[in-house]
Amino acid sequence: MIDGFRTVNLLRVRDGRRTADVDRAATEEPLEIRLHGRPFAVIMRTPGADRELAAGFLLAEGVLLSAADLGAIAHCTDAGAEHPENIVNVTLTNESAEALDSVLAGRRLVAMSSSCGMCGRLTIASLRTGTPAVTSTCAVSREALLAMPDRLRAAQAVFGETGGLHAAGLFTCDGSLEEVAEDVGRHNAVDKVIGRMVMREAVPIADRVLFVSGRTSFEIVQKALLAGIPIVASVSAASSLAIDLAADGGVTLVGFVRGDSFNIYTHPPRIS
Amino acid sequence: MIDGFRTVNLLRVRDGRRTADVDRAATEEPLEIRLHGRPFAVIMRTPGADRELAAGFLLAEGVLLSAADLGAIAHCTDAGAEHPENIVNVTLTNESAEALDSVLAGRRLVAMSSSCGMCGRLTIASLRTGTPAVTSTCAVSREALLAMPDRLRAAQAVFGETGGLHAAGLFTCDGSLEEVAEDVGRHNAVDKVIGRMVMREAVPIADRVLFVSGRTSFEIVQKALLAGIPIVASVSAASSLAIDLAADGGVTLVGFVRGDSFNIYTHPPRIS
Repeated sequence: MIDGFRTVNLLRVRDGRRTADVDRAATEEPLEIRLHGRPFAVIMRTPGADRELAAGFLLAEGVLLSAADLGAIAHCTDAGAEHPENIVNVTLTNESAEALDSVLAGRRLVAMSSSCGMCGRLTIASLRTGTPAVTSTCAVSREALLAMPDRLRAAQAVFGETGGLHAAGLFTCDGSLEEVAEDVGRHNAVDKVIGRMVMREAVPIADRVLFVSGRTSFEIVQKALLAGIPIVASVSAASSLAIDLAADGGVTLVGFVRGDSFNIYTHPPRIS
Repeated sequence: MIDGFRTVNLLRVRDGRRTADVDRAATEEPLEIRLHGRPFAVIMRTPGADRELAAGFLLAEGVLLSAADLGAIAHCTDAGAEHPENIVNVTLTNESAEALDSVLAGRRLVAMSSSCGMCGRLTIASLRTGTPAVTSTCAVSREALLAMPDRLRAAQAVFGETGGLHAAGLFTCDGSLEEVAEDVGRHNAVDKVIGRMVMREAVPIADRVLFVSGRTSFEIVQKALLAGIPIVASVSAASSLAIDLAADGGVTLVGFVRGDSFNIYTHPPRIS
Protein backbone atom coordinates (compact mmCIF):
# COMPACT_ATOMS: atom_id res chain seq x y z
CA MET A 1 0.00 0.00 0.00
CA ILE A 2 3.02 2.29 0.05
CA ASP A 3 2.18 3.50 -3.46
CA GLY A 4 -1.42 4.24 -2.57
CA PHE A 5 -0.96 7.98 -2.39
CA ARG A 6 1.08 10.79 -3.87
CA THR A 7 2.01 14.20 -2.53
CA VAL A 8 0.25 17.07 -4.30
CA ASN A 9 0.48 20.84 -4.00
CA LEU A 10 -2.67 22.79 -3.20
CA LEU A 11 -4.06 26.01 -1.81
CA ARG A 12 -6.02 25.64 1.40
CA VAL A 13 -8.77 28.23 1.76
CA ARG A 14 -10.11 28.58 5.29
CA ASP A 15 -12.09 31.50 6.70
CA GLY A 16 -11.17 33.39 3.57
CA ARG A 17 -7.39 32.98 3.96
CA ARG A 18 -5.32 31.12 1.37
CA THR A 19 -2.33 29.03 2.37
CA ALA A 20 -0.07 27.07 0.03
CA ASP A 21 0.30 23.54 1.39
CA VAL A 22 0.92 19.95 0.38
CA ASP A 23 -1.42 17.03 0.91
CA ARG A 24 -1.69 13.42 -0.15
CA ALA A 25 -4.00 12.27 -2.94
CA ALA A 26 -5.00 8.67 -3.59
CA THR A 27 -3.09 7.34 -6.59
CA GLU A 28 -5.14 6.47 -9.66
CA GLU A 29 -3.55 4.91 -12.75
CA PRO A 30 -4.79 2.69 -15.58
CA LEU A 31 -4.15 -1.05 -15.49
CA GLU A 32 -4.29 -2.96 -18.76
CA ILE A 33 -5.19 -6.61 -18.38
CA ARG A 34 -3.94 -8.84 -21.20
CA LEU A 35 -5.06 -12.39 -21.88
CA HIS A 36 -2.32 -14.49 -23.46
CA GLY A 37 -0.69 -11.23 -24.57
CA ARG A 38 -3.83 -9.75 -26.12
CA PRO A 39 -5.38 -6.59 -24.64
CA PHE A 40 -8.61 -7.49 -22.85
CA ALA A 41 -9.62 -4.63 -20.55
CA VAL A 42 -8.36 -1.43 -18.97
CA ILE A 43 -9.32 -0.46 -15.44
CA MET A 44 -8.55 2.78 -13.61
CA ARG A 45 -7.16 1.61 -10.28
CA THR A 46 -4.91 2.39 -7.33
CA PRO A 47 -1.59 0.57 -7.93
CA GLY A 48 -0.93 -2.35 -5.60
CA ALA A 49 -2.24 -5.94 -5.63
CA ASP A 50 -2.43 -5.69 -9.43
CA ARG A 51 -2.23 -9.43 -10.00
CA GLU A 52 -4.98 -10.00 -7.43
CA LEU A 53 -7.09 -7.34 -9.13
CA ALA A 54 -6.63 -9.05 -12.49
CA ALA A 55 -7.49 -12.47 -11.05
CA GLY A 56 -10.61 -11.21 -9.28
CA PHE A 57 -11.72 -9.21 -12.31
CA LEU A 58 -11.39 -12.21 -14.64
CA LEU A 59 -13.37 -14.38 -12.23
CA ALA A 60 -16.15 -11.78 -12.08
CA GLU A 61 -16.13 -11.45 -15.87
CA GLY A 62 -16.67 -15.18 -16.27
CA VAL A 63 -13.38 -15.60 -18.15
CA LEU A 64 -11.65 -17.50 -15.36
CA LEU A 65 -13.96 -20.44 -14.72
CA SER A 66 -12.19 -21.79 -11.65
CA ALA A 67 -9.24 -20.84 -9.50
CA ALA A 68 -7.35 -23.93 -10.65
CA ASP A 69 -7.35 -22.60 -14.22
CA LEU A 70 -5.15 -19.60 -13.41
CA GLY A 71 -1.80 -20.14 -15.14
CA ALA A 72 0.85 -17.44 -15.15
CA ILE A 73 -0.08 -13.96 -13.96
CA ALA A 74 2.66 -11.34 -14.08
CA HIS A 75 3.41 -7.73 -14.89
CA CYS A 76 4.41 -7.07 -18.46
CA THR A 77 7.99 -7.79 -19.45
CA ASP A 78 7.61 -6.46 -23.00
CA ALA A 79 10.65 -4.27 -23.65
CA GLY A 80 8.57 -1.93 -25.80
CA ALA A 81 6.04 -1.01 -23.11
CA GLU A 82 6.64 2.40 -21.57
CA HIS A 83 4.74 1.59 -18.38
CA PRO A 84 5.06 -2.18 -17.86
CA GLU A 85 4.00 -1.67 -14.22
CA ASN A 86 0.55 -0.77 -15.56
CA ILE A 87 0.13 -3.97 -17.58
CA VAL A 88 -0.61 -7.46 -16.24
CA ASN A 89 -0.57 -10.47 -18.55
CA VAL A 90 -2.62 -13.53 -17.61
CA THR A 91 -2.39 -17.06 -18.99
CA LEU A 92 -5.30 -19.42 -18.53
CA THR A 93 -5.12 -23.21 -18.43
CA ASN A 94 -7.48 -26.17 -18.56
CA GLU A 95 -11.15 -25.48 -19.22
CA SER A 96 -10.81 -21.70 -19.03
CA ALA A 97 -8.19 -21.73 -21.79
CA GLU A 98 -10.25 -24.07 -23.94
CA ALA A 99 -13.40 -22.00 -23.45
CA LEU A 100 -11.72 -18.63 -23.98
CA ASP A 101 -12.55 -18.13 -27.64
CA SER A 102 -16.15 -19.20 -27.24
CA VAL A 103 -16.57 -17.19 -24.03
CA LEU A 104 -15.33 -14.07 -25.78
CA ALA A 105 -17.30 -14.75 -28.96
CA GLY A 106 -20.46 -15.37 -26.97
CA ARG A 107 -20.33 -11.97 -25.33
CA ARG A 108 -21.25 -8.72 -26.95
CA LEU A 109 -18.46 -6.31 -27.59
CA VAL A 110 -18.62 -2.65 -26.71
CA ALA A 111 -16.26 0.15 -27.42
CA MET A 112 -14.22 1.11 -24.41
CA SER A 113 -13.86 4.70 -23.37
CA SER A 114 -11.46 6.96 -25.16
CA SER A 115 -9.12 7.10 -22.18
CA CYS A 116 -8.40 3.45 -22.44
CA GLY A 117 -6.91 2.86 -25.85
CA MET A 118 -3.45 4.00 -24.94
CA CYS A 119 -2.44 2.10 -21.91
CA GLY A 120 1.19 1.12 -21.58
CA ARG A 121 2.22 4.29 -23.33
CA LEU A 122 0.14 6.41 -21.05
CA THR A 123 0.74 10.09 -20.62
CA ILE A 124 -1.62 12.84 -19.57
CA ALA A 125 -1.21 14.40 -22.99
CA SER A 126 -2.31 11.21 -24.73
CA LEU A 127 -5.20 10.77 -22.31
CA ARG A 128 -6.53 14.13 -23.41
CA THR A 129 -6.74 12.76 -26.96
CA GLY A 130 -6.69 16.17 -28.59
CA THR A 131 -9.37 17.75 -26.40
CA PRO A 132 -8.54 21.45 -26.22
CA ALA A 133 -7.76 22.91 -22.81
CA VAL A 134 -10.55 24.92 -21.18
CA THR A 135 -9.80 28.63 -21.44
CA SER A 136 -12.98 30.13 -19.94
CA THR A 137 -12.30 33.13 -17.73
CA CYS A 138 -15.45 32.71 -15.63
CA ALA A 139 -14.92 32.97 -11.89
CA VAL A 140 -16.85 31.87 -8.82
CA SER A 141 -16.70 33.53 -5.41
CA ARG A 142 -15.67 31.72 -2.24
CA GLU A 143 -19.13 32.34 -0.78
CA ALA A 144 -20.94 30.90 -3.80
CA LEU A 145 -18.72 27.81 -3.74
CA LEU A 146 -19.24 27.23 -0.01
CA ALA A 147 -23.03 27.39 -0.47
CA MET A 148 -23.10 24.69 -3.18
CA PRO A 149 -23.08 21.53 -1.01
CA ASP A 150 -26.22 22.61 0.87
CA ARG A 151 -27.96 23.74 -2.30
CA LEU A 152 -27.18 20.44 -4.01
CA ARG A 153 -28.34 18.42 -1.03
CA ALA A 154 -31.59 20.39 -0.79
CA ALA A 155 -32.32 19.53 -4.43
CA GLN A 156 -31.65 15.80 -3.97
CA ALA A 157 -35.10 14.35 -3.90
CA VAL A 158 -34.13 10.72 -3.46
CA PHE A 159 -31.02 10.77 -1.31
CA GLY A 160 -32.93 11.73 1.80
CA GLU A 161 -35.16 8.74 1.21
CA THR A 162 -32.52 6.13 0.63
CA GLY A 163 -29.04 7.39 1.51
CA GLY A 164 -28.05 5.58 -1.64
CA LEU A 165 -27.64 8.07 -4.46
CA HIS A 166 -24.87 10.23 -5.83
CA ALA A 167 -25.68 13.69 -7.12
CA ALA A 168 -24.19 16.06 -9.66
CA GLY A 169 -25.20 19.68 -10.12
CA LEU A 170 -24.43 22.41 -12.62
CA PHE A 171 -24.22 25.83 -10.97
CA THR A 172 -23.98 29.21 -12.61
CA CYS A 173 -20.92 31.20 -11.59
CA ASP A 174 -22.96 33.28 -9.15
CA GLY A 175 -23.93 30.09 -7.34
CA SER A 176 -27.44 29.31 -8.62
CA LEU A 177 -28.21 25.64 -9.12
CA GLU A 178 -29.29 25.15 -12.71
CA GLU A 179 -29.38 21.38 -13.21
CA VAL A 180 -29.25 18.46 -10.82
CA ALA A 181 -29.29 14.71 -11.35
CA GLU A 182 -29.11 11.71 -9.04
CA ASP A 183 -28.00 8.17 -9.73
CA VAL A 184 -26.58 5.08 -8.05
CA GLY A 185 -23.58 5.70 -10.32
CA ARG A 186 -21.45 8.78 -9.77
CA HIS A 187 -20.49 8.98 -13.45
CA ASN A 188 -24.11 8.62 -14.52
CA ALA A 189 -25.20 11.65 -12.49
CA VAL A 190 -22.51 13.70 -14.28
CA ASP A 191 -23.54 12.33 -17.69
CA LYS A 192 -27.15 13.25 -16.96
CA VAL A 193 -26.52 16.93 -16.17
CA ILE A 194 -24.10 17.32 -19.07
CA GLY A 195 -26.49 15.41 -21.34
CA ARG A 196 -29.25 17.87 -20.53
CA MET A 197 -27.03 20.67 -21.86
CA VAL A 198 -26.20 18.58 -24.92
CA MET A 199 -29.89 18.15 -25.70
CA ARG A 200 -30.28 21.92 -25.46
CA GLU A 201 -27.23 22.39 -27.70
CA ALA A 202 -25.66 24.41 -24.88
CA VAL A 203 -22.25 22.74 -25.16
CA PRO A 204 -19.41 23.72 -24.59
CA ILE A 205 -20.53 24.65 -21.09
CA ALA A 206 -18.05 27.50 -20.66
CA ASP A 207 -19.53 29.28 -17.64
CA ARG A 208 -20.72 26.69 -15.15
CA VAL A 209 -19.40 24.85 -12.10
CA LEU A 210 -19.85 21.06 -12.00
CA PHE A 211 -20.36 20.04 -8.36
CA VAL A 212 -20.35 16.34 -7.41
CA SER A 213 -21.36 14.68 -4.17
CA GLY A 214 -18.60 12.09 -4.13
CA ARG A 215 -14.93 11.70 -4.87
CA THR A 216 -13.46 13.17 -8.03
CA SER A 217 -11.85 10.56 -10.23
CA PHE A 218 -10.07 10.86 -13.56
CA GLU A 219 -13.27 10.10 -15.45
CA ILE A 220 -15.25 12.89 -13.80
CA VAL A 221 -12.64 15.47 -14.85
CA GLN A 222 -12.47 13.91 -18.31
CA LYS A 223 -16.22 14.31 -18.77
CA ALA A 224 -16.02 17.96 -17.65
CA LEU A 225 -13.11 18.62 -19.99
CA LEU A 226 -14.94 17.13 -22.98
CA ALA A 227 -17.96 19.33 -22.18
CA GLY A 228 -15.79 22.43 -21.76
CA ILE A 229 -16.67 22.97 -18.07
CA PRO A 230 -14.05 25.21 -16.41
CA ILE A 231 -14.59 24.40 -12.70
CA VAL A 232 -15.13 21.02 -10.98
CA ALA A 233 -15.75 20.92 -7.23
CA SER A 234 -16.65 18.26 -4.69
CA VAL A 235 -17.26 17.72 -0.99
CA SER A 236 -14.68 14.97 -1.02
CA ALA A 237 -11.19 14.02 -2.22
CA ALA A 238 -9.70 14.03 -5.74
CA SER A 239 -7.49 11.29 -7.15
CA SER A 240 -3.96 11.89 -8.39
CA LEU A 241 -4.91 11.40 -12.04
CA ALA A 242 -7.93 13.70 -11.71
CA ILE A 243 -5.56 16.42 -10.47
CA ASP A 244 -3.06 15.77 -13.27
CA LEU A 245 -5.71 15.91 -15.98
CA ALA A 246 -7.28 19.06 -14.53
CA ALA A 247 -3.88 20.75 -14.38
CA ASP A 248 -3.11 19.84 -17.98
CA GLY A 249 -6.60 20.54 -19.34
CA GLY A 250 -7.08 23.98 -17.82
CA VAL A 251 -9.80 22.85 -15.39
CA THR A 252 -10.02 24.39 -11.89
CA LEU A 253 -10.33 21.46 -9.47
CA VAL A 254 -11.58 22.02 -5.91
CA GLY A 255 -12.03 19.41 -3.19
CA PHE A 256 -13.27 19.02 0.40
CA VAL A 257 -15.79 21.88 0.16
CA ARG A 258 -17.02 21.64 3.74
CA GLY A 259 -18.15 24.22 6.29
CA ASP A 260 -15.97 27.28 5.75
CA SER A 261 -13.08 25.72 3.86
CA PHE A 262 -11.96 23.95 0.69
CA ASN A 263 -8.80 22.95 -1.18
CA ILE A 264 -7.88 24.25 -4.64
CA TYR A 265 -5.78 21.71 -6.54
CA THR A 266 -5.41 23.39 -9.92
CA HIS A 267 -5.90 26.75 -11.69
CA PRO A 268 -6.87 28.86 -8.65
CA PRO A 269 -7.52 32.19 -10.47
CA ARG A 270 -11.12 31.14 -11.20
CA ILE A 271 -11.90 31.20 -7.44
CA SER A 272 -12.30 34.85 -6.42
CA MET B 1 -37.15 11.42 -9.77
CA ILE B 2 -40.33 9.68 -8.65
CA ASP B 3 -38.92 6.34 -9.78
CA GLY B 4 -35.66 6.86 -7.91
CA PHE B 5 -36.48 4.49 -5.09
CA ARG B 6 -38.44 1.36 -4.34
CA THR B 7 -39.91 0.04 -1.11
CA VAL B 8 -38.11 -3.01 0.26
CA ASN B 9 -38.75 -5.29 3.23
CA LEU B 10 -36.01 -5.70 5.81
CA LEU B 11 -35.22 -6.64 9.38
CA ARG B 12 -33.91 -3.81 11.53
CA VAL B 13 -31.51 -5.01 14.24
CA ARG B 14 -30.96 -2.47 17.01
CA ASP B 15 -29.57 -3.14 20.48
CA GLY B 16 -30.01 -6.81 19.73
CA ARG B 17 -33.74 -6.58 18.90
CA ARG B 18 -35.07 -7.50 15.46
CA THR B 19 -38.00 -5.66 13.94
CA ALA B 20 -39.57 -6.32 10.55
CA ASP B 21 -39.87 -3.02 8.70
CA VAL B 22 -39.94 -1.46 5.26
CA ASP B 23 -37.49 1.07 3.87
CA ARG B 24 -36.69 2.66 0.55
CA ALA B 25 -33.79 1.54 -1.62
CA ALA B 26 -32.35 3.49 -4.54
CA THR B 27 -33.51 1.95 -7.80
CA GLU B 28 -30.80 0.41 -9.99
CA GLU B 29 -31.60 -1.02 -13.43
CA PRO B 30 -29.63 -1.57 -16.64
CA LEU B 31 -29.93 0.88 -19.51
CA GLU B 32 -28.97 -0.32 -22.98
CA ILE B 33 -27.83 2.47 -25.31
CA ARG B 34 -28.28 1.69 -29.00
CA LEU B 35 -26.72 3.61 -31.86
CA HIS B 36 -28.89 3.55 -34.99
CA GLY B 37 -30.56 0.45 -33.55
CA ARG B 38 -27.34 -1.42 -32.81
CA PRO B 39 -26.40 -2.24 -29.20
CA PHE B 40 -23.53 -0.01 -28.11
CA ALA B 41 -23.27 -0.06 -24.30
CA VAL B 42 -25.09 -1.09 -21.16
CA ILE B 43 -24.95 1.02 -18.01
CA MET B 44 -26.35 0.20 -14.58
CA ARG B 45 -28.26 3.32 -13.62
CA THR B 46 -31.13 4.82 -11.64
CA PRO B 47 -34.08 5.26 -14.03
CA GLY B 48 -34.92 8.86 -14.88
CA ALA B 49 -33.31 11.31 -17.33
CA ASP B 50 -32.39 8.31 -19.50
CA ARG B 51 -32.13 10.33 -22.70
CA GLU B 52 -29.90 12.87 -20.97
CA LEU B 53 -27.75 10.03 -19.63
CA ALA B 54 -27.37 8.60 -23.12
CA ALA B 55 -26.51 12.01 -24.60
CA GLY B 56 -23.93 12.80 -21.92
CA PHE B 57 -22.43 9.31 -22.12
CA LEU B 58 -22.02 9.49 -25.90
CA LEU B 59 -20.35 12.91 -25.63
CA ALA B 60 -17.91 11.58 -23.02
CA GLU B 61 -17.21 8.52 -25.17
CA GLY B 62 -16.25 10.71 -28.12
CA VAL B 63 -19.07 9.26 -30.27
CA LEU B 64 -21.13 12.45 -30.26
CA LEU B 65 -18.73 15.06 -31.60
CA SER B 66 -20.94 18.10 -31.03
CA ALA B 67 -24.36 18.82 -29.54
CA ALA B 68 -25.68 19.79 -32.97
CA ASP B 69 -25.08 16.24 -34.22
CA LEU B 70 -27.67 14.70 -31.91
CA GLY B 71 -30.55 13.46 -34.05
CA ALA B 72 -33.37 11.42 -32.56
CA ILE B 73 -33.02 10.12 -29.03
CA ALA B 74 -35.90 8.07 -27.67
CA HIS B 75 -36.83 5.02 -25.65
CA CYS B 76 -37.15 1.80 -27.61
CA THR B 77 -40.40 1.23 -29.48
CA ASP B 78 -39.45 -2.27 -30.64
CA ALA B 79 -42.50 -4.47 -30.01
CA GLY B 80 -40.26 -7.44 -29.19
CA ALA B 81 -38.40 -5.80 -26.31
CA GLU B 82 -39.59 -6.92 -22.89
CA HIS B 83 -38.28 -3.83 -21.12
CA PRO B 84 -38.34 -1.00 -23.67
CA GLU B 85 -38.09 1.50 -20.79
CA ASN B 86 -34.53 0.23 -20.28
CA ILE B 87 -33.43 0.84 -23.87
CA VAL B 88 -32.64 4.20 -25.50
CA ASN B 89 -31.95 4.44 -29.22
CA VAL B 90 -29.84 7.33 -30.51
CA THR B 91 -29.47 8.58 -34.06
CA LEU B 92 -26.51 10.74 -34.96
CA THR B 93 -26.36 13.29 -37.77
CA ASN B 94 -23.75 15.36 -39.59
CA GLU B 95 -20.10 14.73 -38.79
CA SER B 96 -20.83 12.38 -35.89
CA ALA B 97 -22.82 10.08 -38.17
CA GLU B 98 -20.17 10.20 -40.88
CA ALA B 99 -17.39 9.50 -38.40
CA LEU B 100 -19.21 6.73 -36.54
CA ASP B 101 -17.72 3.74 -38.30
CA SER B 102 -14.19 5.07 -38.14
CA VAL B 103 -14.59 6.20 -34.51
CA LEU B 104 -15.74 2.72 -33.52
CA ALA B 105 -13.14 0.97 -35.65
CA GLY B 106 -10.37 3.15 -34.24
CA ARG B 107 -11.13 2.15 -30.70
CA ARG B 108 -10.23 -1.11 -29.12
CA LEU B 109 -13.03 -3.42 -28.25
CA VAL B 110 -13.40 -5.13 -24.93
CA ALA B 111 -15.84 -7.70 -23.77
CA MET B 112 -18.49 -6.25 -21.54
CA SER B 113 -19.38 -7.84 -18.25
CA SER B 114 -21.59 -10.88 -18.16
CA SER B 115 -24.44 -8.94 -16.61
CA CYS B 116 -24.81 -6.83 -19.67
CA GLY B 117 -25.51 -9.14 -22.56
CA MET B 118 -29.16 -9.58 -21.86
CA CYS B 119 -30.63 -6.15 -21.56
CA GLY B 120 -34.13 -5.60 -22.81
CA ARG B 121 -35.15 -9.07 -21.69
CA LEU B 122 -33.75 -8.57 -18.26
CA THR B 123 -34.73 -10.72 -15.33
CA ILE B 124 -32.83 -11.50 -12.18
CA ALA B 125 -32.72 -15.14 -13.22
CA SER B 126 -31.04 -14.24 -16.51
CA LEU B 127 -28.63 -11.90 -14.76
CA ARG B 128 -27.41 -14.81 -12.67
CA THR B 129 -26.42 -16.57 -15.92
CA GLY B 130 -26.44 -20.01 -14.37
CA THR B 131 -24.39 -19.15 -11.30
CA PRO B 132 -25.58 -21.53 -8.57
CA ALA B 133 -27.14 -19.99 -5.47
CA VAL B 134 -24.93 -19.83 -2.39
CA THR B 135 -25.95 -22.54 0.07
CA SER B 136 -23.28 -22.11 2.76
CA THR B 137 -24.65 -22.49 6.28
CA CYS B 138 -21.95 -20.36 7.91
CA ALA B 139 -23.23 -17.78 10.38
CA VAL B 140 -21.83 -14.59 11.87
CA SER B 141 -22.82 -13.11 15.23
CA ARG B 142 -24.29 -9.65 15.69
CA GLU B 143 -21.25 -8.64 17.77
CA ALA B 144 -18.75 -9.79 15.13
CA LEU B 145 -20.67 -7.91 12.42
CA LEU B 146 -20.85 -4.69 14.44
CA ALA B 147 -17.08 -4.79 15.02
CA MET B 148 -16.23 -5.06 11.31
CA PRO B 149 -16.40 -1.36 10.30
CA ASP B 150 -13.78 -0.36 12.91
CA ARG B 151 -11.56 -3.33 12.09
CA LEU B 152 -11.70 -2.53 8.40
CA ARG B 153 -10.99 1.16 8.99
CA ALA B 154 -8.04 0.34 11.26
CA ALA B 155 -6.52 -1.75 8.46
CA GLN B 156 -6.94 0.96 5.82
CA ALA B 157 -3.45 2.27 5.46
CA VAL B 158 -4.15 4.90 2.84
CA PHE B 159 -7.63 6.19 3.61
CA GLY B 160 -6.45 8.07 6.68
CA GLU B 161 -3.88 9.80 4.52
CA THR B 162 -6.13 10.82 1.67
CA GLY B 163 -9.79 10.33 2.49
CA GLY B 164 -10.01 9.08 -1.05
CA LEU B 165 -10.06 5.30 -1.07
CA HIS B 166 -12.67 2.61 -0.86
CA ALA B 167 -11.93 -0.55 1.10
CA ALA B 168 -13.09 -4.14 0.95
CA GLY B 169 -12.35 -6.78 3.58
CA LEU B 170 -12.86 -10.50 3.89
CA PHE B 171 -13.70 -11.53 7.44
CA THR B 172 -13.90 -15.00 8.90
CA CYS B 173 -17.27 -15.82 10.42
CA ASP B 174 -15.95 -15.19 13.93
CA GLY B 175 -15.08 -11.64 12.86
CA SER B 176 -11.33 -11.77 12.18
CA LEU B 177 -10.14 -9.65 9.27
CA GLU B 178 -8.33 -11.93 6.85
CA GLU B 179 -7.82 -9.82 3.73
CA VAL B 180 -8.16 -6.12 3.02
CA ALA B 181 -7.65 -4.05 -0.12
CA GLU B 182 -8.02 -0.38 -0.95
CA ASP B 183 -8.65 1.33 -4.25
CA VAL B 184 -10.09 4.49 -5.78
CA GLY B 185 -12.60 2.09 -7.36
CA ARG B 186 -15.08 0.30 -5.11
CA HIS B 187 -15.31 -2.68 -7.47
CA ASN B 188 -11.53 -2.91 -7.71
CA ALA B 189 -11.16 -3.27 -3.94
CA VAL B 190 -13.60 -6.20 -4.06
CA ASP B 191 -11.79 -7.77 -7.04
CA LYS B 192 -8.49 -7.49 -5.17
CA VAL B 193 -9.61 -9.38 -2.04
CA ILE B 194 -11.43 -12.03 -4.07
CA GLY B 195 -8.47 -12.26 -6.45
CA ARG B 196 -6.16 -13.02 -3.55
CA MET B 197 -8.33 -16.05 -2.73
CA VAL B 198 -8.35 -17.05 -6.42
CA MET B 199 -4.54 -17.01 -6.48
CA ARG B 200 -4.54 -19.29 -3.43
CA GLU B 201 -7.13 -21.54 -5.11
CA ALA B 202 -9.40 -20.89 -2.12
CA VAL B 203 -12.53 -20.31 -4.23
CA PRO B 204 -15.50 -20.78 -3.70
CA ILE B 205 -15.18 -18.66 -0.56
CA ALA B 206 -17.95 -20.45 1.36
CA ASP B 207 -17.26 -19.24 4.89
CA ARG B 208 -16.36 -15.56 4.76
CA VAL B 209 -18.09 -12.18 5.04
CA LEU B 210 -17.33 -9.58 2.37
CA PHE B 211 -17.46 -6.13 4.00
CA VAL B 212 -17.31 -3.00 1.83
CA SER B 213 -16.82 0.62 2.84
CA GLY B 214 -19.30 2.11 0.39
CA ARG B 215 -22.69 1.46 -1.09
CA THR B 216 -23.62 -2.01 -2.28
CA SER B 217 -24.52 -2.08 -5.96
CA PHE B 218 -25.62 -4.94 -8.18
CA GLU B 219 -22.06 -5.56 -9.34
CA ILE B 220 -20.71 -5.99 -5.80
CA VAL B 221 -23.28 -8.70 -5.05
CA GLN B 222 -22.62 -10.27 -8.44
CA LYS B 223 -18.90 -10.54 -7.69
CA ALA B 224 -19.66 -12.11 -4.30
CA LEU B 225 -22.09 -14.57 -5.84
CA LEU B 226 -19.58 -15.66 -8.50
CA ALA B 227 -17.00 -16.23 -5.75
CA GLY B 228 -19.48 -18.15 -3.60
CA ILE B 229 -19.40 -15.67 -0.68
CA PRO B 230 -22.49 -16.13 1.52
CA ILE B 231 -22.62 -12.77 3.38
CA VAL B 232 -22.12 -9.22 2.04
CA ALA B 233 -22.24 -6.28 4.47
CA SER B 234 -21.64 -2.56 4.25
CA VAL B 235 -21.73 0.62 6.31
CA SER B 236 -24.01 2.16 3.72
CA ALA B 237 -27.08 1.58 1.56
CA ALA B 238 -27.83 -1.19 -0.96
CA SER B 239 -29.45 -0.65 -4.33
CA SER B 240 -32.71 -2.30 -5.37
CA LEU B 241 -31.01 -4.62 -7.85
CA ALA B 242 -28.34 -5.61 -5.32
CA ILE B 243 -31.15 -6.68 -2.97
CA ASP B 244 -32.98 -8.58 -5.73
CA LEU B 245 -29.86 -10.46 -6.81
CA ALA B 246 -28.89 -11.30 -3.22
CA ALA B 247 -32.41 -12.61 -2.54
CA ASP B 248 -32.36 -14.77 -5.65
CA GLY B 249 -28.75 -15.93 -5.29
CA GLY B 250 -28.88 -17.02 -1.66
CA VAL B 251 -26.61 -14.21 -0.43
CA THR B 252 -27.24 -12.58 2.97
CA LEU B 253 -27.15 -8.82 2.40
CA VAL B 254 -26.68 -6.40 5.30
CA GLY B 255 -26.57 -2.59 5.15
CA PHE B 256 -26.02 0.44 7.39
CA VAL B 257 -23.77 -1.39 9.87
CA ARG B 258 -23.26 1.57 12.22
CA GLY B 259 -22.90 1.87 15.98
CA ASP B 260 -25.20 -0.74 17.48
CA SER B 261 -27.49 -1.39 14.54
CA PHE B 262 -27.80 -2.69 11.00
CA ASN B 263 -30.42 -3.72 8.43
CA ILE B 264 -30.74 -7.26 7.04
CA TYR B 265 -32.18 -7.19 3.54
CA THR B 266 -32.03 -10.88 2.58
CA HIS B 267 -31.51 -14.35 4.06
CA PRO B 268 -31.36 -13.37 7.77
CA PRO B 269 -30.68 -16.86 9.23
CA ARG B 270 -26.91 -16.41 8.69
CA ILE B 271 -26.89 -13.56 11.26
CA SER B 272 -27.03 -15.14 14.72
